[in-house]
Amino acid sequence: MMNRCVHENCLVQPYMAWVLANAVPVFIGSVLVTYVAPVAAGSGIPVIKCYLNGVKVPEVVRIKTLIVKAIGVILSVVGGLAVGKEGPMIHCGAVIAAGISQGKSTSLKKDFRIFHEFRQDHEKRDFVSAGAAAGVAAAFGAPVGGVLFSLEEGASFWNQALTWRIFFCSTVSAFVLSFCLSIYHGEPGVLSSTGLLNFGTFGNSVQWEIMEIPLYVLMGAIGGALGALYNYLNYRLSVFRARFIHQNSMKVLESVLVAVMSATVAFIMIELSNDCSAQEDEKHTDNSLQFHCKDGRYSAIGQLWFQTPEKSVQSLFHMSQGTWSPYTLMPFFLVYFILNCWTYGLSVSSGVFIPTLLMGGVFGRLFGMGVRSIVNYWDYDWDVNCGKFALIGAAAMLGGVVRMTLSLSVILIEATRNITFCLPIVITLIVAKWVGDYLFEGLYDFHFQLARVPFLNWEAPNEGHHIYASEIMAFPVTTLPPVIKVGDLMDILSKTTHNGFPVTDGCPDPVSDLKSGLSVNRPKHFGTFRGLILRDQLIVLLQNKIFNESVDIVWSRVGSRDFRQPYPRYASVNQVHVSLMERNFHIDLRPFMNFSAYSISHNSSLFRIHKLFRALGLRHLTVVNDQNEVVGMITRKDLAVFRTHNRFGKTTLETLHVSHG
Amino acid sequence: MMNRCVHENCLVQPYMAWVLANAVPVFIGSVLVTYVAPVAAGSGIPVIKCYLNGVKVPEVVRIKTLIVKAIGVILSVVGGLAVGKEGPMIHCGAVIAAGISQGKSTSLKKDFRIFHEFRQDHEKRDFVSAGAAAGVAAAFGAPVGGVLFSLEEGASFWNQALTWRIFFCSTVSAFVLSFCLSIYHGEPGVLSSTGLLNFGTFGNSVQWEIMEIPLYVLMGAIGGALGALYNYLNYRLSVFRARFIHQNSMKVLESVLVAVMSATVAFIMIELSNDCSAQEDEKHTDNSLQFHCKDGRYSAIGQLWFQTPEKSVQSLFHMSQGTWSPYTLMPFFLVYFILNCWTYGLSVSSGVFIPTLLMGGVFGRLFGMGVRSIVNYWDYDWDVNCGKFALIGAAAMLGGVVRMTLSLSVILIEATRNITFCLPIVITLIVAKWVGDYLFEGLYDFHFQLARVPFLNWEAPNEGHHIYASEIMAFPVTTLPPVIKVGDLMDILSKTTHNGFPVTDGCPDPVSDLKSGLSVNRPKHFGTFRGLILRDQLIVLLQNKIFNESVDIVWSRVGSRDFRQPYPRYASVNQVHVSLMERNFHIDLRPFMNFSAYSISHNSSLFRIHKLFRALGLRHLTVVNDQNEVVGMITRKDLAVFRTHNRFGKTTLETLHVSHG
Repeated sequence: MMNRCVHENCLVQPYMAWVLANAVPVFIGSVLVTYVAPVAAGSGIPVIKCYLNGVKVPEVVRIKTLIVKAIGVILSVVGGLAVGKEGPMIHCGAVIAAGISQGKSTSLKKDFRIFHEFRQDHEKRDFVSAGAAAGVAAAFGAPVGGVLFSLEEGASFWNQALTWRIFFCSTVSAFVLSFCLSIYHGEPGVLSSTGLLNFGTFGNSVQWEIMEIPLYVLMGAIGGALGALYNYLNYRLSVFRARFIHQNSMKVLESVLVAVMSATVAFIMIELSNDCSAQEDEKHTDNSLQFHCKDGRYSAIGQLWFQTPEKSVQSLFHMSQGTWSPYTLMPFFLVYFILNCWTYGLSVSSGVFIPTLLMGGVFGRLFGMGVRSIVNYWDYDWDVNCGKFALIGAAAMLGGVVRMTLSLSVILIEATRNITFCLPIVITLIVAKWVGDYLFEGLYDFHFQLARVPFLNWEAPNEGHHIYASEIMAFPVTTLPPVIKVGDLMDILSKTTHNGFPVTDGCPDPVSDLKSGLSVNRPKHFGTFRGLILRDQLIVLLQNKIFNESVDIVWSRVGSRDFRQPYPRYASVNQVHVSLMERNFHIDLRPFMNFSAYSISHNSSLFRIHKLFRALGLRHLTVVNDQNEVVGMITRKDLAVFRTHNRFGKTTLETLHVSHG
Repeated sequence: MMNRCVHENCLVQPYMAWVLANAVPVFIGSVLVTYVAPVAAGSGIPVIKCYLNGVKVPEVVRIKTLIVKAIGVILSVVGGLAVGKEGPMIHCGAVIAAGISQGKSTSLKKDFRIFHEFRQDHEKRDFVSAGAAAGVAAAFGAPVGGVLFSLEEGASFWNQALTWRIFFCSTVSAFVLSFCLSIYHGEPGVLSSTGLLNFGTFGNSVQWEIMEIPLYVLMGAIGGALGALYNYLNYRLSVFRARFIHQNSMKVLESVLVAVMSATVAFIMIELSNDCSAQEDEKHTDNSLQFHCKDGRYSAIGQLWFQTPEKSVQSLFHMSQGTWSPYTLMPFFLVYFILNCWTYGLSVSSGVFIPTLLMGGVFGRLFGMGVRSIVNYWDYDWDVNCGKFALIGAAAMLGGVVRMTLSLSVILIEATRNITFCLPIVITLIVAKWVGDYLFEGLYDFHFQLARVPFLNWEAPNEGHHIYASEIMAFPVTTLPPVIKVGDLMDILSKTTHNGFPVTDGCPDPVSDLKSGLSVNRPKHFGTFRGLILRDQLIVLLQNKIFNESVDIVWSRVGSRDFRQPYPRYASVNQVHVSLMERNFHIDLRPFMNFSAYSISHNSSLFRIHKLFRALGLRHLTVVNDQNEVVGMITRKDLAVFRTHNRFGKTTLETLHVSHG
């Protein structure tokens, strides 16, 4: 249509068509995401990261989310937004894995009565990490990269058995995809085609030399700086959005606006550009657009806009020298940078990997051209391959934005099927990470923070050695006696929101508020620590009426199956009905409580507590004094409060307000 | 010489030459290992595994060991034993890393006064894991495999920052090797050649199909069974050796005997075989031997014996069909199996990877031939590639012997530079591991057990939920009061061998022996737990004379530097000289003790304690009762006692006697 209209002077027609073709899918996608499953917005990697970290984000692994995510990402990509489909794919893999592990779906009201043993938080989490790995394996054709991604993002305790199960899962995923692709390509059984995303392979002729390493370091530094700038702009934008764009209709409107802008900017750029390339190499490009160019040539910029971003990345890696002029790529980089930055955080399902790789590829190509012109100027005998620089540039940019090093290197190596560039990629990524971390936080990190999610980092802040449990812990603690009246328990459960209750001896009145008159340095105690019991367990006990008129022990009429059955949606205390007579019965917690729950001394450092939480995946930790008497409770939220900020070189320890979760 | 003598009927000459050429290097290597550094015997992987697990094996990371290991492995390989050089290379990498991290060498009496902050156990261990990864990267050209090897064998707590440092280290190692190789091959700067070990690449023509998967499963099962048989034979042999071969001279004699046997058996096999192959393909073979064959042909079996094992593996993977007849390969497999099994455990420096791959390659090739003849018999249209089966067979065999899955798959994929066979290799390795684990323990596992090393497995035994701290812990506990008389401390230190001492309040007599009259169920307590202090710290305090005439606190005249300076060879208590007057002085432990040391309740389960030890890398854990009073101590040795055995399908929980370490 554009090719026709450029001669017939009816360019408004294709423009309107383009705008509509962008706006309608994005509108539908955005409505779906905004009104049906807001958690499906964005790339999905941050929420999976949170989930694996142990934060309970509601609805992350529901079927509803999966459907909205899958449809939403298709609509976003069709709508021509600067988005990728890799993040959502990882999220989808995780949801499917979580669903399989439970053998039931609450949304579909179906319980297959299988896999009861997996209805626990940590079992489900293992499945989710395998699903995420399978998602990476399918998206990039990178089974090893998938395993490392899961580990880098999710694991805290290295578990050998789990790891090779994840590896098996991601290998099967890559293999099934490759099998399906082979059928799609009409050659069933030929399993060489791999990954939805294919960057093409570099031939053996493309090598690198030691003297190029300084260039890679420089590229890494620039990539890190650009990534930090990207993150900073996105941060400002997110703050702006959080303040002014509350209404759902506004969110949809913004998405449609971005879709229209994408089409408009692309159209104007194609119209204004007169950079024409010779037609060549069907393998690494498609959808070429003749436009103003002569026959047999096509618009270099039109090609970048009309292809899928994946294909554009491949073109940038493999097209020969001189395909694009620098005066085409420079404005494209600028415009795409802004569009990409604006798009991330919209209320649509969107990945950030591919657009960032595209930005980075353009940057690398420009860098390569710069090097090439310097080399030509000084007449060195050195053939600069711009495709190689595009690869390194893509790595630098992505590293600067998301700050993953190990898994990203392996994914890039696997996706390009070339181990030769292992060292350059690693060097670039490390430099990009250093420079980026110095300037600004990673993309996902500040989004956690804006979402007030109690995310625990790998390492405690440096100041952690001088912050002690007594400063971190929350008190007064609501403790329970080993045998409690049902009525009292009901009152405690409905008045508090705690998830874990220490069971103690010798605290006279568990409900009394001791807040007044306490000094911080010597907190009063709340009874001798005996064990810990969870709110969910208490609810199950109440629902199953495990109580008696006397104070005798009722030996378990409930088994572990009863505790797992309602998982993950336990009833709230208001749904438990207890008669007035039953309120006077007693309930004995001793058979059910975890009597070897971990506790820690009140003078332990934040550093040590942080390590304990990360290593053992704790959610609650009881703080005791030297006499083993409970003085406080530490939850993941109390720890996540201590967080360091990197903002342009300044590191500050900030005590953050985090939401419940 | 052999080619000449076969015509001149002087075959005794080359035989004698061969025997001498084998026996002399092996004799020298064995003498070196046996008399100078016994810890350098074997592959080195088990000791590195122990070291990373947290077991203190003496002399593992000394320079002396490095030199003996490096020379020893060269001599073993030159001596024609059925050994590889990969395990020793990993050990060497680890020693070098440990040396660099310390910035001093006690053996060479040189202290560069740098890297003081690394003179701690866990810092040094991080370096050792990086060194081991670098070793793998260099040996197999597999940087990612190296990282995974370090993690699979060594890591317990996943540390993101450490992991990418390891990855960087192994990438640099692979790169430097590749650079040196490029110079050696006369093409400096061409970095495509990778790894000392090169299995050659499979072309794109070699593919696999879904219907082959059952075959791979079968091969995995056979490999697992053969691996278990290998391990069982080696276990019997090791028990025999431990009982009868004590003297160093006997050990050397046995090594020489094996060397002579290797030459003899090989010679007889070459002499008896009349399987001749056409000369072909210089790339995948060398040292071809004409012997009885006609001109232009060579002895198929002679080639296997005369090449390095690495080259033979490559030949097995890539030589065309019909290179060997099954009647050549079958006796070779049998003989090599026995030789390999006999060799592992000799007092020489030797790796088990390559010979096992060779065995497996032969097995796979035989399997492929079998499949081929069945296919031919039934006239299927299916071209069976025996090289592919050799690769799978090698994986199956190695998996069956050493039972590593994740790292091994990645190493094999990286070493063959082909991701196509990822899924078959993973399936085969997993099946081999299952079958092998069902039948007999892994090679390294029972060697730990024979060496009575307190090695902690990944998982606690299944019975661990019903074994409690009070059954595991050691008591009575030697506790120290916060302020102690120097003389008393000296007496305690010289009378005990404990490495950690709880500091307690309110225990009247720290030296008294409470053993008599204690019941196991209600152990008496040894004072209220205040903190933990290490023997090494106490020695440093005594050496620096941090004590005073009165009971006042002497504020630290010692810094952390003083505690790290003598690392890792702290003086024993006998080397500390304290005058008679000083014995009456007091020493205050409170500023130095770890007052937030972990402690655990006496009713915690073995399962939970095991998890704590693995996740936090503990060495000592104080057991307290409900009143926070010390009732016992658990060390890694107490935990390692509980170990399950797999012997031909029967799993038994055995309480093992382990040595100090």
